[in-house]
Amino acid sequence: MTLPMTVMDEGLPTRIRIHEVGARDGLQNESTIVPTEIKAEFIHRLAAAGLTTIEATSFVHPDWVPQLADAERLFPMVRDLESVRLPVLVPNDRGLDRALALGVRQVAVFASATESFAKANLNRTLDESLAMFEPVVARARDERLHVRGYLSMCFGDPWEGPVPVGQVARLVRTLVDMGCDEVSLGDTIGVATPGHVQSLLATLIEEGVHLSKVGVHFHDTYGQALANTFAALQHGVTTVDASAGGLGGCPYAKSATGNLATEDLLWMLQGLGIDTGVDLGLLTATSVWMAEQLGRPSPSRTVSALSHKES
Amino acid sequence: MTLPMTVMDEGLPTRIRIHEVGARDGLQNESTIVPTEIKAEFIHRLAAAGLTTIEATSFVHPDWVPQLADAERLFPMVRDLESVRLPVLVPNDRGLDRALALGVRQVAVFASATESFAKANLNRTLDESLAMFEPVVARARDERLHVRGYLSMCFGDPWEGPVPVGQVARLVRTLVDMGCDEVSLGDTIGVATPGHVQSLLATLIEEGVHLSKVGVHFHDTYGQALANTFAALQHGVTTVDASAGGLGGCPYAKSATGNLATEDLLWMLQGLGIDTGVDLGLLTATSVWMAEQLGRPSPSRTVSALSHKES
Repeated sequence: MTLPMTVMDEGLPTRIRIHEVGARDGLQNESTIVPTEIKAEFIHRLAAAGLTTIEATSFVHPDWVPQLADAERLFPMVRDLESVRLPVLVPNDRGLDRALALGVRQVAVFASATESFAKANLNRTLDESLAMFEPVVARARDERLHVRGYLSMCFGDPWEGPVPVGQVARLVRTLVDMGCDEVSLGDTIGVATPGHVQSLLATLIEEGVHLSKVGVHFHDTYGQALANTFAALQHGVTTVDASAGGLGGCPYAKSATGNLATEDLLWMLQGLGIDTGVDLGLLTATSVWMAEQLGRPSPSRTVSALSHKES
Repeated sequence: MTLPMTVMDEGLPTRIRIHEVGARDGLQNESTIVPTEIKAEFIHRLAAAGLTTIEATSFVHPDWVPQLADAERLFPMVRDLESVRLPVLVPNDRGLDRALALGVRQVAVFASATESFAKANLNRTLDESLAMFEPVVARARDERLHVRGYLSMCFGDPWEGPVPVGQVARLVRTLVDMGCDEVSLGDTIGVATPGHVQSLLATLIEEGVHLSKVGVHFHDTYGQALANTFAALQHGVTTVDASAGGLGGCPYAKSATGNLATEDLLWMLQGLGIDTGVDLGLLTATSVWMAEQLGRPSPSRTVSALSHKES
């Protein structure tokens, strides 16, 4: 397989961790409901490709996200994967109960960086939503779970427009103080650009947040995800969220969230000599297989290029 | 229209020039042959959107590129556009004759960074191909034309793999010494990554080439074009090639060259506070219109996002 020439950049980390979101954030945003057995095979294949953090599913109420209503059946089919973290989304105490009953060891909670999205997504004010998470995070910590906090709309919000970096930084600080082991900065509507990213990261450092506690989660809605990721790596971020094959982001769908494709990220990282332990060939084959399950091509440029070359 | 929040980066240029290649490099790589009147309207609309350098067509032999066989009819329909540079591709003396007869003021010649591609594309050795361009460039300079040199395969080559940066830098130097006013560094197969880009630019400076003489021409085959462009801007490049709507790069076509979409570039530049004088709304509308002429959606993420939002 063709690979990019490796030219290392002294200012960048030598190793990063990919937080693979395809099985959860990806499938949640696809119109097709994938059978549980296919999801389990998908997660096994992601692990075989070398991914070590694979967000598996979501314990929200099945009515909210029918695509992931099979969480209770799915998790036992993957939980014995060795050396793989399998975080799941939990929205509240009830979700945490369900996750704990199945032996989950990593959870993620979902917060908003803006009042408007807190209202739209959670029907609460920002303060009310944080108050709701606090006991969930505390109990998860008591149970010695690893806790990730997702923060949505960190760059722009469809109602409020650009989101002030100070407001985002204070919320990240609050989530860390609450007990989150890491916070993922979500560019939910994909509007961020590299200077904005670097400005937010600089503000986080000023706010006393160590960037080892921060992940970045970019969407490719406007094609900016990889440039933003490069800017974040230059600033010292070492956790990057991505979705195998760009799942959840078909560019011709109105509902596209446009997740950064893990393969496009890997191509850049291989060129930069940044180790992830992931095999691009195995991952691409997995994404081609999953695209067949969904009956449409992968929106990842790298998957498209490599699979056409090989066919 | 939604726009990204502007956060300027002190290390970047405040203004750059977009070299718009959609009407030439884009349409040359589309399977549909577009009527001459549509091409002329396209170029007028690109100019109305604020683009000031619009590569118009190619004076290669019509048998080689049937998509652009109407160069003689097209050029007179656009040559009176005010304050717009309209470079055309000329492969040899005969092409230059045809261009001069029509009042062309800017030309581009096409060279290769590797022996294999020189052989495949021009059926000549590298030295023979440079010897062929020399009199064309000399005569164009005598006629006081602006001369751009395209250098293909600057990063990777399908036959030779990664291309040594020293080899590329020496060829750029040769083209500048020959009289080229600028040289466009083409990542023809789209394999470049940001560290490789920065390494080549550093080598060019060592070779005595001022980066004001250099443009970058990235392809999005593996999704890297915008990250590479950001890396080039950080290094001081101020001329960027892009194709309106990503013309010539439909991601699901085997023949995709994957040109960087001008709209995706503009989104990033607006966020970075880098002025280009181009109106993103007018340009997006133009690309939506052109996609209708071609009967398929634009591969640009930004065009897709903005046009779905508006529909």
